[in-house]
Amino acid sequence: MIAKSMVNYVKGSSVIRAMFEEGKRMAALYGAENVYDFSLGNPSVQPPAAVKEAIVDILENEDETYVHGYMSNAGYEDVRAAIAESLNKKHGTSFSEKNILMTVGAAGGLNVVFKTILDPGDEVITFSPFFGEYRNYVANYNGVLVEVPPTDDFMPEEESFRAAFSEKTKAVIINNPNNPTGVVYSEDTIKMIAKVMEEKEAEYNKAIYLVADEPYRELVYDGAEVVYLTKYYKDTIVGYSYSKSLSLPGERIGYLVMPDEIDDFENVVAAAAVANRILGFVNAPSLIQRAVAKCTEAEVDVEIYNKNRELLYKSLIDMGYECIKPQGAFYLFVKAMGGDDKAFVAKAKEFNLLLVPGSTFGGPGYARIAYCVDYDMIVRALPAFEKLAACYK
Amino acid sequence: MIAKSMVNYVKGSSVIRAMFEEGKRMAALYGAENVYDFSLGNPSVQPPAAVKEAIVDILENEDETYVHGYMSNAGYEDVRAAIAESLNKKHGTSFSEKNILMTVGAAGGLNVVFKTILDPGDEVITFSPFFGEYRNYVANYNGVLVEVPPTDDFMPEEESFRAAFSEKTKAVIINNPNNPTGVVYSEDTIKMIAKVMEEKEAEYNKAIYLVADEPYRELVYDGAEVVYLTKYYKDTIVGYSYSKSLSLPGERIGYLVMPDEIDDFENVVAAAAVANRILGFVNAPSLIQRAVAKCTEAEVDVEIYNKNRELLYKSLIDMGYECIKPQGAFYLFVKAMGGDDKAFVAKAKEFNLLLVPGSTFGGPGYARIAYCVDYDMIVRALPAFEKLAACYK
Repeated sequence: MIAKSMVNYVKGSSVIRAMFEEGKRMAALYGAENVYDFSLGNPSVQPPAAVKEAIVDILENEDETYVHGYMSNAGYEDVRAAIAESLNKKHGTSFSEKNILMTVGAAGGLNVVFKTILDPGDEVITFSPFFGEYRNYVANYNGVLVEVPPTDDFMPEEESFRAAFSEKTKAVIINNPNNPTGVVYSEDTIKMIAKVMEEKEAEYNKAIYLVADEPYRELVYDGAEVVYLTKYYKDTIVGYSYSKSLSLPGERIGYLVMPDEIDDFENVVAAAAVANRILGFVNAPSLIQRAVAKCTEAEVDVEIYNKNRELLYKSLIDMGYECIKPQGAFYLFVKAMGGDDKAFVAKAKEFNLLLVPGSTFGGPGYARIAYCVDYDMIVRALPAFEKLAACYK
Repeated sequence: MIAKSMVNYVKGSSVIRAMFEEGKRMAALYGAENVYDFSLGNPSVQPPAAVKEAIVDILENEDETYVHGYMSNAGYEDVRAAIAESLNKKHGTSFSEKNILMTVGAAGGLNVVFKTILDPGDEVITFSPFFGEYRNYVANYNGVLVEVPPTDDFMPEEESFRAAFSEKTKAVIINNPNNPTGVVYSEDTIKMIAKVMEEKEAEYNKAIYLVADEPYRELVYDGAEVVYLTKYYKDTIVGYSYSKSLSLPGERIGYLVMPDEIDDFENVVAAAAVANRILGFVNAPSLIQRAVAKCTEAEVDVEIYNKNRELLYKSLIDMGYECIKPQGAFYLFVKAMGGDDKAFVAKAKEFNLLLVPGSTFGGPGYARIAYCVDYDMIVRALPAFEKLAACYK
């Protein structure tokens, strides 16, 4: 008696989440130290001390009915102003609180965006491989996700991007730094995307929004730069989350940036606030809204992830695995030995290694390894990776 | 360039929320003490001390990556078990953690339910007047809200209820204690609802879910009893929120109860967890999940609302207003003098009184007064109510 649209979801469920549950089951069975769960992007690095200090400070010094109460659906004005100011300082932008809408994480924010802009049948373009939930977020509003095929280096390529557009294109969504590949788009790549989109806006004589999904913005290595997209393309909406930068994924806190210059600004902002309400979010959680406003300068210790990255990348390459060295986020997207990612992931499980098949991300032939885990677990897991590779020799 | 479905939302926005914004504007203009804002159900009573103690205790004693991290989409197992146990103690039920799904407030929970069970065109029955957001929550999944006309005492009436069913009926949603009327349904009323629904399940040979929206369960006066619906009707799903019982509306925390005996239990529970994820909630906010589990015995001081209720009800009756004395929640649903609720509310605004027209709730000819405000504001507002009444004499 569940909805027809939910039947296949229940059958398939989320492969990633199923892995997460499987990991807990296996840990109970074999002992947590003997299961190597690389399946979920659940940060292993402690939140910065500033978060706890902020929460305690707020509880001690602010009025409780205010701290835990309703505010405008878009969020507390002072919180939004603090975030706007912090963005302006970092990126030389000129946002104010009216450009910021506080959301229930980036997932909540993306749903708000698609509810706001998508009519049934509207198309949203993304580059494969991509965060698999985009399929669902677009389908929630009867939109259609159009996948641009991947390139060898996972960098967007102009010709195939251009070919993905149609009269029904309403938005392009990009994830930079990228989940699952860990690549960071160069400024030239962003300029290419902006150029093509401007041409397509002119060709179809309508706005096409660039939705920038940026939960991994602060997690970059080797000095990689993540350019701020609103400066390159007028009709950009940014979705941000504190899940990774402050290690608060369970708290469901993030925001949307809707610059003044986007097409139909007043209506988009008004509709987004309504969407936040009627989708059942109502508002981003209140106490943690107030807390993140006090932590605009705080960041998790990225060096911990970097150490994981260096160890895992070098070890895997030495063992004969093939993958691009990630410059951002906390994922390695490794070629599935034998070519079939589902078979490879199933084989990995025999060695208590939990990975996610690339086809979940529109990237068959690969597997994703989330290295937001304890360094020691990586060390303990290396023999298992070795044994897995040996199966294919 | 916003979605066509959002255009009317932006035009109309929420009348209640528009009032909230208007109240802030007027407070800036006339001084907060001269504006009498009765428009929003934003609790004025402090959360119980146990909430702050729980949060601080968790921050001091639990691992931060656990407290702020992802958990199962349904919520922390120990939190769900604690809530199940507390319900069993209060209501003599026999729930376990698998019957509980933690949600982003009741609004999030109701969206999860409707995403889980509604196919396009499915009908959901409710009794007028009702919480206006039901229209949107049902429409989000292309369902149709069917309104049973109100009675004089706002109690569900058998004949018109029976007439509302069709082959497309998938659910009935009731709100007890009721927003906006403040009535509490008697056990006989609940038995009538259960009886009719059982007959209709048999007639149409399918499950029809009773969705019990219960954020006001603990806010009752004069010893009124709110019976627990799962004990009266097999296919009941309860939506609960801590917004009012612990004064935490901004925190977005609540839960669904899905008893073992509901039709298609395994699929409903699995689909609800998926819906929680793909709608963008992902999970209920983590820290506050852990906090409410420690506060299952805590409640706000209902006597504060009761004092407001007594003063306001008696004063309004003395002035010639007509309304039923509410037994629950924190709303008075007063007859609009002159008969036109929108005109009445507009007239009230001339005296800096912010009310919400009954038509927002499918109850034209009335206005809602939310008395979850400072007692002193009610005292200051009485002359304004007096002047408003004088306009109609």
